[in-house]
Amino acid sequence: MRDTYHEELDSIGEGLVEMARLVGSAMGRATTALLDADLKLAETVIEGDQKVNDLQQELEARAIQLLARQQPVATDLRIVVTSLRMSADLERSGDLAKHVAKLARLRYPKSAVPGHLHSTIMEMGQLAQRLMAKTADVITTKNVDMALEMETDDDAMDALHRKLFQSLMDDRWKDGIETAVDVTLCGRYYERFADHAVSCAGRVVYLVTGEHADEINTGD
Amino acid sequence: MRDTYHEELDSIGEGLVEMARLVGSAMGRATTALLDADLKLAETVIEGDQKVNDLQQELEARAIQLLARQQPVATDLRIVVTSLRMSADLERSGDLAKHVAKLARLRYPKSAVPGHLHSTIMEMGQLAQRLMAKTADVITTKNVDMALEMETDDDAMDALHRKLFQSLMDDRWKDGIETAVDVTLCGRYYERFADHAVSCAGRVVYLVTGEHADEINTGD
Repeated sequence: MRDTYHEELDSIGEGLVEMARLVGSAMGRATTALLDADLKLAETVIEGDQKVNDLQQELEARAIQLLARQQPVATDLRIVVTSLRMSADLERSGDLAKHVAKLARLRYPKSAVPGHLHSTIMEMGQLAQRLMAKTADVITTKNVDMALEMETDDDAMDALHRKLFQSLMDDRWKDGIETAVDVTLCGRYYERFADHAVSCAGRVVYLVTGEHADEINTGD
Repeated sequence: MRDTYHEELDSIGEGLVEMARLVGSAMGRATTALLDADLKLAETVIEGDQKVNDLQQELEARAIQLLARQQPVATDLRIVVTSLRMSADLERSGDLAKHVAKLARLRYPKSAVPGHLHSTIMEMGQLAQRLMAKTADVITTKNVDMALEMETDDDAMDALHRKLFQSLMDDRWKDGIETAVDVTLCGRYYERFADHAVSCAGRVVYLVTGEHADEINTGD
């Protein structure tokens, strides 16, 4: 049997995994809503974000209670503080999924994304969802190798983001300014979402190894 | 004389004020670099961001040491945890100033912002700087009224952001897609910077009153 302290710590970890699952699913649904111009689906994402925010506040309160009651030191203390950071990353990821859904709602019944960019945005949405699913797995398993792989996955997101920008800058762009603005913002939402997923996983690496993920990858 | 605990806590507060001053100044310089297409100034902002990041890491380490050594409870504990959150807001604000400076560098020797939007961007830059200066004052003085005023200041930022979008959506927009993309991103950087400043000040309100800033303002 585990002691109360470790039970409480585990339950915070489970809360973080739940947040990651919720925001990953939200980004998947927001992307579908955006591409299909599905107003109802967009609204489920917009309304659902409150649950993510509530969960973050609850986790924060539990982390503070844990600090007060158990007064952990050294690694245990670092785990609790890091979990606060991770919950902030995940809460912000939920906001970004909501931003995508709001864009879908704003342009309804049109899709905010022109047809020739559907496949790129779909790839960005799917990659964002896979990254967040990996983050959930990394939190559960504390698998450092998996966390480090995510930096490479994130390179793929950067490449998709560049591809999107190249389409925007192409002389043949015929979709007007409004759509260019929508696509610019969208691209940024996916990129930032991926950054938060990678950042969360990187914090697990730091807890396990004491080194920052980028130090392990680049050797500097 | 103050005891060690309160001295350490004050010094974390001073570190937060220093971060707010640094990122406020960075955003001011980044805006000037953007409008004047001043490459050297842009580079000082880009390089200077490392100092903000270092300061955040140092504050985080000191906060964790304080938790471990002094094991604060109740309000004291909440102050330390909140300072971690504030340092994350300020670090992210520094990134946003850096993004503005990078845009200035990318388009050099041109200005990324067309002439007819210079005054709007200048206003956004100045307001961003004033908001962050107020955040520094709120951290120092714990003045709740000043913090609550910032919500109104932030409405002015939202109005400027809308004005920028209206220019983009105007049929008379003649500056092409690349500039539209640059202006879209820029607008978002200023808006997010302001959000982080307001969020930091709001955390001080919560520490002082136990209520979230938006609850005090709206009564709900």
